[in-house]
Amino acid sequence: MSNKKKYDLLSQIQSPADLRRLKLDDLPELCQQLREDIIEEVAVNPGHLASSLGATEITVACHYVFHTPEDRLVWDVGHQAYGHKILTGRRDSFCNNRKLNGLMPFPSPVESVYDTFTCGHASNSISAALGMAVAAKLTKQHRHVVAIIGDGAMSGGLAFEGLNNVSSQPNDLLIILNDNDMSIDRSVGGMEQYLLNLDTNETYNRLRFKASQWLNSKGLLNDERRKGLLRLNNALKSALAHQQNMFEGMNIRYFGPFDGNNITELVRILRQLKNMKGPKLLHLHTKKGKGYEPAEKSATVWHAPGKFDPETGERMVQDSSREPPKFQDVFGKTLLELARRNPRIVGVTPAMPTGCSMNIMMDEMPDRTFDVGIAEAHAVTFSAGMAKDGLQPFCNIYSAFSQRAYDSIIHDMAILNLPVVLCLDRAGLVGEDGATHHGAFDMAFLRPVPNLTIASPMDECELRRLMYTAQLPGKGSFVIRYPRGRGVQTRWDCPLTEVRVGTGRRIHDGWDVAILSIGPIGNDVEQAIDLIERAESPATKGHCPSVAHYDMRFLKPLDTDILKEVAARFSRIITIEDGVRNGGLGSAVTEWMADHGYSPRITRMGLPDHFVEQGTVQQLREICGIDVDGIKGQLTAACR
Amino acid sequence: MSNKKKYDLLSQIQSPADLRRLKLDDLPELCQQLREDIIEEVAVNPGHLASSLGATEITVACHYVFHTPEDRLVWDVGHQAYGHKILTGRRDSFCNNRKLNGLMPFPSPVESVYDTFTCGHASNSISAALGMAVAAKLTKQHRHVVAIIGDGAMSGGLAFEGLNNVSSQPNDLLIILNDNDMSIDRSVGGMEQYLLNLDTNETYNRLRFKASQWLNSKGLLNDERRKGLLRLNNALKSALAHQQNMFEGMNIRYFGPFDGNNITELVRILRQLKNMKGPKLLHLHTKKGKGYEPAEKSATVWHAPGKFDPETGERMVQDSSREPPKFQDVFGKTLLELARRNPRIVGVTPAMPTGCSMNIMMDEMPDRTFDVGIAEAHAVTFSAGMAKDGLQPFCNIYSAFSQRAYDSIIHDMAILNLPVVLCLDRAGLVGEDGATHHGAFDMAFLRPVPNLTIASPMDECELRRLMYTAQLPGKGSFVIRYPRGRGVQTRWDCPLTEVRVGTGRRIHDGWDVAILSIGPIGNDVEQAIDLIERAESPATKGHCPSVAHYDMRFLKPLDTDILKEVAARFSRIITIEDGVRNGGLGSAVTEWMADHGYSPRITRMGLPDHFVEQGTVQQLREICGIDVDGIKGQLTAACR
Repeated sequence: MSNKKKYDLLSQIQSPADLRRLKLDDLPELCQQLREDIIEEVAVNPGHLASSLGATEITVACHYVFHTPEDRLVWDVGHQAYGHKILTGRRDSFCNNRKLNGLMPFPSPVESVYDTFTCGHASNSISAALGMAVAAKLTKQHRHVVAIIGDGAMSGGLAFEGLNNVSSQPNDLLIILNDNDMSIDRSVGGMEQYLLNLDTNETYNRLRFKASQWLNSKGLLNDERRKGLLRLNNALKSALAHQQNMFEGMNIRYFGPFDGNNITELVRILRQLKNMKGPKLLHLHTKKGKGYEPAEKSATVWHAPGKFDPETGERMVQDSSREPPKFQDVFGKTLLELARRNPRIVGVTPAMPTGCSMNIMMDEMPDRTFDVGIAEAHAVTFSAGMAKDGLQPFCNIYSAFSQRAYDSIIHDMAILNLPVVLCLDRAGLVGEDGATHHGAFDMAFLRPVPNLTIASPMDECELRRLMYTAQLPGKGSFVIRYPRGRGVQTRWDCPLTEVRVGTGRRIHDGWDVAILSIGPIGNDVEQAIDLIERAESPATKGHCPSVAHYDMRFLKPLDTDILKEVAARFSRIITIEDGVRNGGLGSAVTEWMADHGYSPRITRMGLPDHFVEQGTVQQLREICGIDVDGIKGQLTAACR
Repeated sequence: MSNKKKYDLLSQIQSPADLRRLKLDDLPELCQQLREDIIEEVAVNPGHLASSLGATEITVACHYVFHTPEDRLVWDVGHQAYGHKILTGRRDSFCNNRKLNGLMPFPSPVESVYDTFTCGHASNSISAALGMAVAAKLTKQHRHVVAIIGDGAMSGGLAFEGLNNVSSQPNDLLIILNDNDMSIDRSVGGMEQYLLNLDTNETYNRLRFKASQWLNSKGLLNDERRKGLLRLNNALKSALAHQQNMFEGMNIRYFGPFDGNNITELVRILRQLKNMKGPKLLHLHTKKGKGYEPAEKSATVWHAPGKFDPETGERMVQDSSREPPKFQDVFGKTLLELARRNPRIVGVTPAMPTGCSMNIMMDEMPDRTFDVGIAEAHAVTFSAGMAKDGLQPFCNIYSAFSQRAYDSIIHDMAILNLPVVLCLDRAGLVGEDGATHHGAFDMAFLRPVPNLTIASPMDECELRRLMYTAQLPGKGSFVIRYPRGRGVQTRWDCPLTEVRVGTGRRIHDGWDVAILSIGPIGNDVEQAIDLIERAESPATKGHCPSVAHYDMRFLKPLDTDILKEVAARFSRIITIEDGVRNGGLGSAVTEWMADHGYSPRITRMGLPDHFVEQGTVQQLREICGIDVDGIKGQLTAACR
């Protein structure tokens, strides 16, 4: 089939207004085309697949029934929103999704009026949408506000705080619960169980829905009748099922569960709910990966599958046997190795067992690993509780998401200096996931916290040694940050030996300028030095710059022996880190020099004081001036 | 009555072991004595009163039934734990509660083995206790773990994350929900409503409780029978009420509500629940302020009443008509003034309308002020949602609690630079509430965040001007931090004029040393300079130190004109702030100097890199070396 025919409906749609001109009967076919388009695009331009496939009907139905962009759709985590992008004028540019200067990885108001809020981190949609719904009331705008939240995101405390406040103010918010029983991995927790239980009470809900439909059709569902309807509702409740639904108990009217992949039904339901007053929650069951068999079968793998052949469903996994391992794999394998030796070790992850490779330990020791769902603050406080009573938790959180746990880190972990090893995965630039996902701030926001030891390994072997060190008795609260992706060592299984806390190491000696690095960016420093040395002609031989390189390894405590040595030997110092310049390693070194009466010339290299968007890690490093070339340039300049 | 007779039971109790030797019949009298002791002590040594009075029976019953300290009691917010302190060997030292080197304001394991966790910030008990319960299982310790959480704390997202995970692991956690319908102000939100609704289903719960009592008495309530009991439970449910209790739905067995101020009943219930397997929640109704009539009548006022006459209930309110107003009052009155002019202004507070004085606006404009309960992250994200759709929220959070909202500040507010005015009350040292409550970190953790404007007023008038400025169009995300308590100006109602963003001001000129301050500590700097100038004798006249003082006013953006001037004129610079030295103003100034090739001698004054405990603000400033004397000393030393 030609693409023209294949996408005959989809190609008509430049904006949701075009969508709304379609007949209801056309929508199943449109959903099919939208799915195929997403699959075709993501096959060659890797991104998030399964979530958007599952949410196809929700997307089409929302734009069909609601008058976007005047009505507000607030997506909770933009994974599910590829269909939304394609339907809102971004089909042509979708091939540049997640690329440098291309479409942003998650919907953003900066990019489109159809994108209403930042949605990189889970669980914020209810609170933000409630804000918009209240704003609509107060400014007398007759607009609808719809939050679309996954069941995985529902486990986040912020989502609950939002829910808990929904009925406190007059508003007409509609919350669509897109329940696919998954976050990236399978959803966990009591709420998940609770949602499951709700399914067993369909009769009552369906009956009630029919009743309100009837009232609506008779024109009875206006503001004045709301109280009456509530009474009717209560009566129905008593008469039919005596169900004390949690959402109803919180004064949010509950509808469902319905099949969220049935477009015709969905449009009908949304039309019914659209003009119903007061806050309400629509519970939809969808299938993650829906419509693409491989993704339906294995939604975790197909959450973000990389390139694949759309016909065969074969994923183009590169032969990486000769490449260095990912830091994640080294983390996962080392954790298991340590846990075998040390029975006090337990593992905690907020919904990322696969992403951080804690699944390796989980497989062998299911009773000592805890996937707590999307709940970063709980992950830390729960770990602290275990540490208080004798266990040695390794709590692994993506750096950007650890911002959610900041108070738990300070109040529940650091004040008592409890022996939690907080492993911050995805520290530094993460690439295509963009501004919301870069682990840019962790060093800056953790350094001010007393009692914390903060380290970052330059390579996989150092990661292993730091992990080993952190679980030794008496180390207290210990943070280890490391990046996404591959390191530099093909042999990673070095012996587990202790690193003395607060010590760095000199990697390279020289006399003109000292560069102090932390983390794997030290390898780029080495490359830059290598380039400089190779470029030396006989004429420049022995001339500048001759570079000394120190891997600081610890942000806190700083290695003061190194600092003294550097202060004594060099008048020119460069610091480099893959976090923000404000407050991190460079800041710490500069403070130390000032405190101790030294005044070398210091250049702090790192991330700038603005949000860095998406691109490959390499592209972004270049833009931020912290790639090999940028380092070489600074080193050379330092010598002039 | 002599004190000896009056406290005949209480005085026997040196530890909970002594308590457990009392007869059940003695407990009502003991509760009475404990109450009177608390009232008597708090009357002369101000602290938190009403919460502990309400929790008296819970405290006595828990220590009576459980084998503390082997069994773990985890208090959620130490307000309720005065009785706990008195019963655990701290009655004699209770007169030094909250004082420098005295008892810590909230229970802390540093102080007592009976204190199991840090409990300054609300909502962390379930997660921490779950950690302990899991640790007990894994390490095969046969101990009980009990979390005691107020209904106010239950609205925090962390509490929900904890609840949501309670049933995911095998554990026997008991959660006691101390439901008094209050946090500091009245509790709000859907959960509150939900708990209220539960009361209407007492019959079912009581029946079920009777059933399990019966099973227990027959020795049937052992591990093997658990599944059977669950089935029985479900059967009971179906037969009696069809109640789908939220907690039960999350696989937490629910018992209640019961009268939490009936000690005999409470002991009986706890004995029944003690050896019941699996996670369970006991819902108790208590009266905040119970047993002290003035406090029962007005629990918000008597949350922390200051000194009072225990006989008459007359609070010793000092005549403050001639003192400068509190920053809080100026905030509250100015907010109302601005809101009257600017219809876009709305106010948001997480459970602190009285504490931050937003109640002033709330009284006049209830539809434009939102108390969202203990839910700091929601407060910010909800504000951001309102800002996105045209409103101008002032979101007021205590500095230490804003740590809970860090990701919301970054992800939901700063990325889009949404016009939320985030007012951080209680910034800097707060005094008697101690380590968990000092607003020590805000400048250090906010400065790395792009897009934020961060300001701190030196006095009340400046606070007004900054508030006025922040709500002008185009200002984006704006943070204003100011301390607890009184400022320095008796006339605070200065005209509302704009402050140019990123500008400080020279308060005092001189030539030896420049001191750069931010916030009200600038007034102490002025006092120190005054002392130095007065001390000048004719002999030293014209000699050192001659001090220039700059009120930086903005942490971000920094006033670079001032920095250039200072760099050009002075080789000796002192910075001072009431936040941690690592990462705040001093760090920013030091970075700027290094970045621009200046190398003055810089001394950074501020809070140290360890947690500062309780004391009066003045005592703590002295200890940290940032009081008038400390400043004078540094200024004088700088000139040598």
